[in-house]
Formats: sequence, C-alpha cells, structure tokens
Amino acid sequence: MGSSLFENLTDADGHAHVVSISVFVAVLCLCIVIGHLLQENRWVNESITAILIGCIAATIILLWSKGRSSHILIFNEELFFIYLLPPIIFNAGFQVKKKQFFHNFLTIMLFGVVGVFVSSAIIAAGSWFLFPKIGFVGLQARDYIAIGTIFSATDTVCTLQVLHQDETPLLYSLVFGEGVVNDATSIVLFNTVKKLNVSRLKGWAAANVLKDFLYLFFISTALGVVAGLLTAYTLKALYFGRHSTDREIALMILMAYLSYMLSELLHLSGILTVFFCGIVMSHYAWHNVSENSRITTRHIFATLSFIAETFIFLYVGMDALDIEKWKMSKTSFGTSMGIYSTIILLILLGRAAFVFPLSALSNYMNSKTERVLITFKHQVIIWWAGLMRGAVSIALAFNQFTYSGVTWDPVYATMITYTVIVVLFSTLVFGFLTKPLIKVLLPHRAMDKNQRPERRQNDSPKEDAANLPLLSFEESATTNIVRAKDSLSMLIERPVYTIHRYWRKFDDSYMRPIFGGPC
Amino acid sequence: MGSSLFENLTDADGHAHVVSISVFVAVLCLCIVIGHLLQENRWVNESITAILIGCIAATIILLWSKGRSSHILIFNEELFFIYLLPPIIFNAGFQVKKKQFFHNFLTIMLFGVVGVFVSSAIIAAGSWFLFPKIGFVGLQARDYIAIGTIFSATDTVCTLQVLHQDETPLLYSLVFGEGVVNDATSIVLFNTVKKLNVSRLKGWAAANVLKDFLYLFFISTALGVVAGLLTAYTLKALYFGRHSTDREIALMILMAYLSYMLSELLHLSGILTVFFCGIVMSHYAWHNVSENSRITTRHIFATLSFIAETFIFLYVGMDALDIEKWKMSKTSFGTSMGIYSTIILLILLGRAAFVFPLSALSNYMNSKTERVLITFKHQVIIWWAGLMRGAVSIALAFNQFTYSGVTWDPVYATMITYTVIVVLFSTLVFGFLTKPLIKVLLPHRAMDKNQRPERRQNDSPKEDAANLPLLSFEESATTNIVRAKDSLSMLIERPVYTIHRYWRKFDDSYMRPIFGGPC
Repeated sequence: MGSSLFENLTDADGHAHVVSISVFVAVLCLCIVIGHLLQENRWVNESITAILIGCIAATIILLWSKGRSSHILIFNEELFFIYLLPPIIFNAGFQVKKKQFFHNFLTIMLFGVVGVFVSSAIIAAGSWFLFPKIGFVGLQARDYIAIGTIFSATDTVCTLQVLHQDETPLLYSLVFGEGVVNDATSIVLFNTVKKLNVSRLKGWAAANVLKDFLYLFFISTALGVVAGLLTAYTLKALYFGRHSTDREIALMILMAYLSYMLSELLHLSGILTVFFCGIVMSHYAWHNVSENSRITTRHIFATLSFIAETFIFLYVGMDALDIEKWKMSKTSFGTSMGIYSTIILLILLGRAAFVFPLSALSNYMNSKTERVLITFKHQVIIWWAGLMRGAVSIALAFNQFTYSGVTWDPVYATMITYTVIVVLFSTLVFGFLTKPLIKVLLPHRAMDKNQRPERRQNDSPKEDAANLPLLSFEESATTNIVRAKDSLSMLIERPVYTIHRYWRKFDDSYMRPIFGGPC
Repeated sequence: MGSSLFENLTDADGHAHVVSISVFVAVLCLCIVIGHLLQENRWVNESITAILIGCIAATIILLWSKGRSSHILIFNEELFFIYLLPPIIFNAGFQVKKKQFFHNFLTIMLFGVVGVFVSSAIIAAGSWFLFPKIGFVGLQARDYIAIGTIFSATDTVCTLQVLHQDETPLLYSLVFGEGVVNDATSIVLFNTVKKLNVSRLKGWAAANVLKDFLYLFFISTALGVVAGLLTAYTLKALYFGRHSTDREIALMILMAYLSYMLSELLHLSGILTVFFCGIVMSHYAWHNVSENSRITTRHIFATLSFIAETFIFLYVGMDALDIEKWKMSKTSFGTSMGIYSTIILLILLGRAAFVFPLSALSNYMNSKTERVLITFKHQVIIWWAGLMRGAVSIALAFNQFTYSGVTWDPVYATMITYTVIVVLFSTLVFGFLTKPLIKVLLPHRAMDKNQRPERRQNDSPKEDAANLPLLSFEESATTNIVRAKDSLSMLIERPVYTIHRYWRKFDDSYMRPIFGGPC
C-alpha cells in the first residue's frame, strides 16, 4: 500500500535520497523563518544562522541514528558546482549596479585578481614553511600550492548584508565586485596550478600560469557576453505584437544556465561566463520583456540565489559533524590548534599584504581625477570583508583532497576537517564581529561624509548623491564634454572614465537599437 | 588548463552528465522559440513540437555518436517523479479556478476516479484476452493489470491548450479537473495493484484495493491541506510591518516541495498532496504576501510547469530512438502492428465506456438543479481530450518493466517500446486532430450558445457570463438565500451547492481571519 514510487525505483538508496531532500528542505524553511525573525539582531546574520541551524540539525540526526548515519552529510561537489553556484553568481551579475562596477573596474580587478595571486603565494609559502615545524607532515608541494588558493577564496556575503549600496556606493561596489572576481580567480587559479607539473617547476611555469589564466578569463567573459546578447536578440526578435511571459522567463533562466554549462563543457570558467551573462542580460534582455516578466525575473533570480546561499551554509554546518572524517584524523589536539591558528594567521596576513598596498596604488592612480579615494577606514573594512571563508573553499578542498567526496588518507581527511573548521571559525567569529565593527567604523549616516570629503559642505545626502559624478554618470559625462577637448590626454589621465564615455556612445548608437534597452 | 571541475570530480561519467544537461537545455531553448513561432499554427501544439524536436535531436545524437551513445537517452524515473512532476501538479492546483473546480467536484470525481477503474478493467481484460491471440506471449497476470493502469493515465495538455477557460468554463473545468485527478488515480491504483498477491486473487481483493485507494486519497489530501494552511499561517504571522519578498517566495516554493516529498516519504500520493497544497496556498497564502511576490509566484510556478512539460515531451521524443531497446525486441513487424492497434483500440473503447454513461449520470444528477448540462458535443470533446497518453504512462511502464531504467528481458523491453510508440502515436495523431476537431465541434464564439441552451436569448457573451450562477457564485449564493429556507431538502436536492454555501460561510468567519485571504 502506498504510492511511493521511489521505494520500488531505487530501493533503500532511493528512499534515503527522499529522506535527505525532505530533511534539507524542512530545515531550509526553518532557516528562512528564523533568519527573518533575527534580521534586526545586532550580532548574527543569515550565514551564521544557517550554519548554527545546520550544526543543530546534524547533531539531532547523529543522535537519532545513534552515530551511524553520517552518510546524509557528505558534501556533494557536483550539487554545489552544477546547481548551487550558478544561480548565486548569475544573480550577482544580474543585480550588480553596472555603472558602479565598471567605474571601479580597475580597482576591483586589482583586488580580485592581483590580490588572489598575492594571498595564495603568502598562504602557500607560509604553510609550506610552518606546517612541518608544528608537526603536521605528509603533504606534497602541489598540496601546499592548492592550500594557498583554497584559503584565498573569500566569502563576502556577511559583509554585504551589513553594508548599504546607497549609503556607501564605492565601498559596496568594491567589496561586492572583489567578492565575485575573487571567487572566479580562485577557481581558475586552482585549476591552472592543478595541471602544473610541480616536480619540474621552472621560471617559465609562473608565466604559463598567467598566460592560461588570462586566456581563460577573456574567453569565458566573451562567451558570457555572447550568450547574453543572443538571449536579448532572441527576445527582441520574438516579440511581434504579443508577449508570452512564461516563455520569456523560461528562456532567460535556461539561457543563463546554458551559458554556464557550455563554459564548463569547453573547460572555461563557468562562474565568469554566467556573471557576465547576467550583466548583459540585465542591460539588454531585461528591457525586451513584459512588465510582469521583469518583476518575476528580478525576484526569482534573487530568491534562487538566496535559497542556494542558505543551502550552502546549512550544508557547511551539517558537514562539520561528519564524524567519519573526525575519526580518521590522527593529529593530536595541540597540533590541530596550532594548524588552525597558523591558517587563520596566514589568512589575516595574506589579505593585509595586498589590501593596503593596492588601495594606496588605486588612490595614487585616481588622485589626478575627481574620483573618490579609499579612506583608511574603508581599507580596514575591505580587509575585514574578505576574511570570511565559505563554500568555495570547501568545494575546492574536497576537490583537492578527496575522490568523489570520500578519502581514506588520514592526512587528506585532516585537511578537509581543517578547512571546514576554518570556514566555521571565520564565518562565526569574524562574521559575528562584522556588524559591530562596521557600526564603529561607519556610524550610521555619518559615513556619507567619510566617503566624500571633497563635498563635505553639502549636507543633504540625497541631493549630494544626485550631484556626484560617481552616481549620475550620464549627466556628468555630458556636462564634461566641453572640458574633454583633448581626448587623447584624457585617455591617459583618466582611462576608465574616457573608455566608459565612448562605450556609452557606442551602446546608444549601435547596441541598444539591436539588442534592446531603455531609449 | 581549464576550470572544468567536473572533469576532476567524477571522471568521464561526470562529464557526460554536463554534456547531456547542456544538450537538453539547448534543445529546450529551441523548443520554446519554435513553440512561440508556431503558436498560431492550426495543427501543431507545444507537445507535438517538443516530441518532434526530441526525435530530431536524438537522430542527430545517434548519427553523431555513430549509433553507440544511446546512454544519454535513458529515461530517468527519479528525475521525473522528484523534479518534473511536482511543479506541474502544484501549478495545476495553484492556477485552478477553485469555484469551478469545486462546483463540478462530483462530476470531476466520477470521470477521474470511477473512469480510471472502468478504463483499467477494460484495457487489462482486453489485452489479457487479445495479446496471446495476436502472438505476443510471456506476460504474467500482474503485468496485464499493470498495463490496464499504465494506459489509463491520460495527458490532457494538448486539449487544454486549445480550450479557453472563459469561453467554455464547464468543459474546461471538467477536462482540466479530470486530467489532474486521473493522473493521481492512475498512480495510486498502479501502486495499489502492484502490492496485490495476484496468485491468490479473491473477491476481497477488489474491496481491499478500494479501501487502500480511499485511505490514500483522503490522507494525502489532508496532508496537502495542512501544508498549505501552515504556509499561509507562517506567512501571515511573519508579516509584522515589513515584507521580505525573497523569503516569501522561497518559503512558498520550499513548502510546496516539502509537502510532496513528505507525502512520498509517508508512502502517500505526493501528486494529490501537492495538488491540494497548491489550491490552499492560492486561496490563503497568496493573499498574505507583497504585490511583487504575488506576481512572481504566479508566473514562476507557471514557468516551471511549462519548462517541466516541455522537458518531458522532449524526453519522450528522444527516448523513442533508444536503439538498445529496439534491438532487444524479438517480435515481428506484423505482431508489433497488431499490438499497437489493439492497445489504441482498447484505449478508445475503455474511454468511451465511461465518458458517455457517466456524462448521462452527471446530467441526471444535475437535471433538477439550474446547473448546466453536458451536451453530446462536449461529451465527444471530453472523450477525445483523454485519448492522448503521456509521461505518466511512460514512467509507470518503466517502473513496471525495468529495474532502474534497464531491462534485459526481451518481452519487457518490447512492452517499453510499445508504450513509447503508443504515447508518440496518440500525442502526434490524436493531438494533431485536436485543434481541427474542436474547431468543428465548437465554432468560435458560437460555443457560448452551445453550452448554455437555457440562456440563448441573451447574446452579449460578457454580460451573459457575469449573470450565470456558474461564474458568479457568490452573488447567486446570496440572492438564493431567500429560496433556501428548507436547508435539509436543499442538501438532498443539490448537495454540492449547499455544502459549498456552508463552506463559504465557515471560510469567511473562521478560516480567512486566521490564514488570510481577500476580505
């Protein structure tokens, strides 16, 4: 009796599948409700809530099954990379304030690309030097390089939940942009160094890493842009007199997903592709659909991203109690604490080593223009925002140290538990302190003044914002045309600004008439 | 070089996964675009388009891989029952016109429940009697009973695409309602008879089937209603001064999915649960969320259902060219043609055997009330609408005749190909004729008169519709109160009508204040 087809389909295994999906979905619902209730809370945020609920759920499951069934908790990389990461990254591209992002493009790239290289080098060298001294041996040279990239992938969700896009646009844009570029860079770098023949490392190897990296970066971006433009053109061409909301929404969702899968299929970086696909779709395709499609797509992408993020943190929380890996680890308590401290210390150092110098460089480049500079307080916040480690670190660690989520090597099992612990510690402790820290560094509303020292006399924040070149780019672009007589000298002095202006002209004259957009 | 993590994760198998997802998503996009272009076409509809494109895609893949790789085409029951069916059924419940559905509840149940029993019995007995005569042997008694339920699961999508809810509300409601109830009944019945010990069939067995069936039906419905009410209450209770659109949408999606999974977990009928969950959610929960959430949920559920339906038909089209099963089948061409004809004939007969008698019964029950009767032309359309066989038949056939999608028994492999052929044939040939048939039986706009003979004098279709008790149920309910002095005699004469009136009173006084809804 009963219509449970699963039972007949795949026996006990299939049934376990249904059980774990049910448990996950139920706990997800709980997370959403509790997250909503705690939204105004001073300390916790959604990530911390989800991790804690995950830990509690895992404890209950462990007690329930009397310590046997930790099978439900195995981290599934395929799930993560095929189903959870794409919506998060696509939504980031779809909702990004494009003007801000491209206006600060050079600085974001400095932090997101150069920063990962610096941080990876420091963490890899530091762990290679320090781990054996503490008493943790057994790792190869390629493992240390992998550890460098694994612990350079940041998770800026915590910080973004606290910052406000309208109050501190530059800061928000930098933290957000770096977060996305950092994830992509870490994954690309991880895969590039994984293919290296470490035993014959020569001077050319570093150059090759850079070459491969740049190739991947540009081809992946181009694929995303092409996918986005194709969607925009299809939606524009299909609209002859009647809209079909369901088809429009379906096409946007499917094309976004297709761009990611195609990119992975071609051995490119799906994360970069889907990010730029999101940007192009929101710039062109979104304007070709009906009003209802616009509302639906905007909210459904945000919702999917929200569910995926909550799911990941829940997963991390549950995975922390995978007792099999705990049992397998053979290192003593003292050694373990030493390793944790070393990794945390290296993360703090590795990030400080690029945030402050690169901020100074960015300020120097922008000092000749009217652009806003990065104050020291903002530098501290940028540094802090990237201290948290998240799901990407875990996924990369599983990729490096397990085979399909399982490992029998005690050293590798230890590395997995270390990664999980570092992610938990950084998210819980650093995440816990984020809200108070930002409250101290940026007292509410006062931050308007901190960020724009040159306009301090203007006190109305709203009017102030409207007059800033940073926010109303079109207006300043047109009023500045008089000054921009010598285009060549401008291109040298303010390259991004000038490129942006020419791009807008090109966009208005050629791209928008073909692919759609606000007229 | 390359960031394809899949490659490292799961080797060749994982990579094949990415390839097949990419191919499917790309072909899905193509289906959507072509479906949009062909929307005004006289003959084809979306299902036929998807099946044909699936066949073409499968041919290309077969030629490309030189006949080797039919692996990509294996029908995955888990995918179907865990991911594709729930959104379709939930959306059906969410978008159903509840007044219409409940107003015609008895007739819908007659067609959807009693009809499946009659049709299954006829097809099972017919195939048991005829198959050996044609020369197809090797099936057991339980296989014949399974064949009965497999070929009783209808697919009314084709017909619903042609009918218009506003022009023929009674017909639309009956075809739609029967379609959903029929799917649920077939699946429940299939699972009930599968557990029977056929070798010791006694008189009590039939009674047991009925008992199990009723138990499943009511418990599943109750679970769906509870899940819907819980969601509505949570959304209402959480709203204190601020909306959080993403959380609201996420909660509705997740709770709907949870109700399905829980039902399957408890060995109930997930399809019934999720259908009633959809009805309750659209009646209560939908009114507790922000305007944007309402637009988004309405469209996203429709879109997901649309994608799932297209996916299924594409799948059926691709599965038709699974050469491995074709090779395994050992029956001659003549026998095969005989079997196809027999099954098609039994489907036509089995459906006629209950549509016309039950319509007459329904008309007899309604003859004393003011309700609209089912004309003969409408009976023909209802009969025709249920001739198509779809994904549920395929899924049940795979469940009965394969183990995890694979079979080595030539007789069973033959049954699978027969099922696929019957689904293809019925969808293509019957589906092809649906639009012309309905055009002939219901000339455009004239159908208003056909359907409501008692109001033929009123020629303005819009005003006509507004005055009909069928459409404006609340108004007629209040104006009829004067006449309804003797409630007991009314309950006997017009049971559904009276129950509905009491239900509305209860709903307005108790349910809506607690769970939300229009005031």
